[in-house]
Amino acid sequence: MPVNPNADIEISAFTWVPPFAEGLVRDLRPRWALEEVGLPYRVQLLEGERPPEYYLDQPFGQVPCYREGPLTIFETGAIVQHIGEKSEKLLPRDSVARIHAIQWTYAALNSVEPAIQNLTAIDLFYTNEEWAKLRRPGAEEFARLKLKRVADRLGDKEWLEDHFTIGDLIMTTVLRIPRHTDLVAEQPNLAAYVARAEQRPAFQRALADQLAVFKQHQPEGVTA
Amino acid sequence: MPVNPNADIEISAFTWVPPFAEGLVRDLRPRWALEEVGLPYRVQLLEGERPPEYYLDQPFGQVPCYREGPLTIFETGAIVQHIGEKSEKLLPRDSVARIHAIQWTYAALNSVEPAIQNLTAIDLFYTNEEWAKLRRPGAEEFARLKLKRVADRLGDKEWLEDHFTIGDLIMTTVLRIPRHTDLVAEQPNLAAYVARAEQRPAFQRALADQLAVFKQHQPEGVTA
Repeated sequence: MPVNPNADIEISAFTWVPPFAEGLVRDLRPRWALEEVGLPYRVQLLEGERPPEYYLDQPFGQVPCYREGPLTIFETGAIVQHIGEKSEKLLPRDSVARIHAIQWTYAALNSVEPAIQNLTAIDLFYTNEEWAKLRRPGAEEFARLKLKRVADRLGDKEWLEDHFTIGDLIMTTVLRIPRHTDLVAEQPNLAAYVARAEQRPAFQRALADQLAVFKQHQPEGVTA
Repeated sequence: MPVNPNADIEISAFTWVPPFAEGLVRDLRPRWALEEVGLPYRVQLLEGERPPEYYLDQPFGQVPCYREGPLTIFETGAIVQHIGEKSEKLLPRDSVARIHAIQWTYAALNSVEPAIQNLTAIDLFYTNEEWAKLRRPGAEEFARLKLKRVADRLGDKEWLEDHFTIGDLIMTTVLRIPRHTDLVAEQPNLAAYVARAEQRPAFQRALADQLAVFKQHQPEGVTA
């Protein structure tokens, strides 16, 4: 269990989020990566408004921020790539395999996540807005196309490249976002891929540790 | 002038795009990076529908794809990071400076570009749609907030970190996208930053080479 208050590595996370965001907050990404490579970390818990000094480390005010001694990194793609540098279990040493892992990390974050986030924002935050009702079919079709492209490339392979890498880790967390829809289920190979990644013990531990904090800080009267 | 038909490195690009997209197509990113490090490249020109085999190299069917001998990379973040590995002019060798450059590359592509693309798609592709009219104020406000966060972090510095890196290169190409708005001009330090990057001779050469192809393939009756 790598959560350890005395660890050198620190990541930021929220004390609590509403149920729709449980298991999706992005600190899951470095938690999972650190579990994969077996490195302990401590957690900086944030509640409510971010203090002004937080923006010095994370200019967008988001979670997570990663600290390791004097080093601070924001952006989960860069954080997970940095953790990957510590172990070829996540980021191969061979230069071609390495850049292909990195390529999928960027693909997940720039070619897939924006389409999925647009659809998810419509469904979770703007449900009753007129523009959201009118826009939803187009946003869904665009997200579906992106998932189909990933599914086509994945084919019957276990992972996007020869082994599980940071690219699969980030892609999985992106594909988990539209869990309120059937978009991933529509592509059986993609659904199996996500299930395979979620079965990894490192993922299970990371998820359990994120959820444990939320449970501990659950406001009175809110049921999960 | 690194465009050279006999070069080892190949990038894909379009023969022609409508004026609103001129100078914004993403092959500008590797063109610029290759100019910065002084490496020659040849261009695979694509016209109309992508041939099915193109998807083998670029699963999303987008431009650019990067080829170097047996190596193929898609996603401009990964392509530019790969080019950066060839020269510390773009990607520092010091491990902290290095991950900070990479962090800004991810920030540009995941924290800034999606907000800017949403606004730009409304303005360029969906202008007359009812949902777009209703959504535009919110999309603009969100894009403005993202730019303010970058501007706040940049402050009065010349570049996002100590020297020009791949992070500045990608961020500049992202900040050029909303050129039909005043969003960047509203943040004078950000506007000056973009202008500074655009004045780099490598950028100028890359842009000229992209535009020269469009001019050469301009359909009859279309004026630039």
